[in-house]
Amino acid sequence: MLSGVAMMPHGNDVLDPKDKKTKKLAETLKEIGRTFSGAEAYVLVSPHNVRMSDHLGIIMTEHLVSWLGFAGVELPGEYDTDRELAGRIYEKAKAKGIPVVDINFAALSGEYSRFPLTWGELIPLHFLEKRPLVLVTPARKVPRETLVRFGEVLAEVLEDYEKKVALIISADHGHAHDPNGPYGYAPESKEYDELIMGLIREDRLEELLNIDDELIRKALPDSYWQLLIMLGSLRKVPMELKITAYACPSYFGMGAALYVRP
Amino acid sequence: MLSGVAMMPHGNDVLDPKDKKTKKLAETLKEIGRTFSGAEAYVLVSPHNVRMSDHLGIIMTEHLVSWLGFAGVELPGEYDTDRELAGRIYEKAKAKGIPVVDINFAALSGEYSRFPLTWGELIPLHFLEKRPLVLVTPARKVPRETLVRFGEVLAEVLEDYEKKVALIISADHGHAHDPNGPYGYAPESKEYDELIMGLIREDRLEELLNIDDELIRKALPDSYWQLLIMLGSLRKVPMELKITAYACPSYFGMGAALYVRP
Repeated sequence: MLSGVAMMPHGNDVLDPKDKKTKKLAETLKEIGRTFSGAEAYVLVSPHNVRMSDHLGIIMTEHLVSWLGFAGVELPGEYDTDRELAGRIYEKAKAKGIPVVDINFAALSGEYSRFPLTWGELIPLHFLEKRPLVLVTPARKVPRETLVRFGEVLAEVLEDYEKKVALIISADHGHAHDPNGPYGYAPESKEYDELIMGLIREDRLEELLNIDDELIRKALPDSYWQLLIMLGSLRKVPMELKITAYACPSYFGMGAALYVRP
Repeated sequence: MLSGVAMMPHGNDVLDPKDKKTKKLAETLKEIGRTFSGAEAYVLVSPHNVRMSDHLGIIMTEHLVSWLGFAGVELPGEYDTDRELAGRIYEKAKAKGIPVVDINFAALSGEYSRFPLTWGELIPLHFLEKRPLVLVTPARKVPRETLVRFGEVLAEVLEDYEKKVALIISADHGHAHDPNGPYGYAPESKEYDELIMGLIREDRLEELLNIDDELIRKALPDSYWQLLIMLGSLRKVPMELKITAYACPSYFGMGAALYVRP
């Protein structure tokens, strides 16, 4: 059963929040962790693991191991994959014609069947109780409607699964908020972030499909494609928005949203 | 230009050979390294990196970093991808209808654009002078003829490339040679290994396509699919066999073969 859905950021600032808004964001992430403490597994969609142009990926390795922090901030840890669930997601998505690959690594099972994690996964996982998970990687050149359809298929698989599973969407938003940041300044970052948080708060997620490519391109988010997957899952299993938060303590926007079953 | 082709093993024993045959095998690997010292880049096909069922993978990350040794034997090191060549291989294979994905990781460029290496890559690379490379991952459920065709396309891309590139096929053979080994004993391992080394020595690589699935299944090799890629490349750019070696110091067979342009 799909027990809940959360959008969570993956910027280092939430680990050690300095300003009021970021502190509220970190508190919201902790609340997400508490709310999902009853989950028996997670599906985690991350934009900073494998990045393929036109195929989604389902990581099938037995183990998932911390490997790559951002700016020297390391979060050690090792997690297990829920391989039964990973296999079901892969098989059903493939059967539905979604471009998806199953990613094993090194060995097909045992101690060498392991895959590296980055900040994109480790920061959301830091706020969640440790559970087996399935790591899913989105793709930017897959058509919008296909990403939504994948979200629908994902929700169907989760609804049929005997365990309670929370869906975690790892996502940060516009990356051009700060003229001194690595991507410089573009007003579209603020515009995009406000639009996304508005669509979430006002239950207008369907309008994600209408956002101009140009706005996305200029805003430099790493959220849009995962949000389309989230939209698909919420279409299939409508949920209630419980809490949101947003902060932009550096050059990129971070938002959180928690959906629970009504 | 494709300057040469080598099949190289990836078992720890070649790093510290104990018996005569394994010493000869290690000497052969050193000779491969010397022969390819003029190469400006490598394409390395490895069965112990990403393992997808039905898609080949081209690793596109800027950096390739040692991550996973076998049985505690670590070979530290960091390598660069020849991204220009990686892109050409991906684009051409895709244009030719071969099921292939481009694998980026974490970030699309810069210091975080890195991918882990295992013993499957690190042991062959240990015997080769350091050069930029393109890491390619084979797939077992891709039809035999498609793997051969990928080898042909690969050779075409390399022939058109301005740099001298050596193609390295990382491969070990039957894994059921020893009743006390992790996979137990199957007589098919010896049969398979003798067949493969015979086809190589007698210039009958085309007969790879006739090997029974049942023999491959029972012999437990991790060579067959890469050898089909090698066959395709040698079809396109016929070469001269310069030296071979074979040893089986533990439960799995290791072979080497060096092909150079006539």
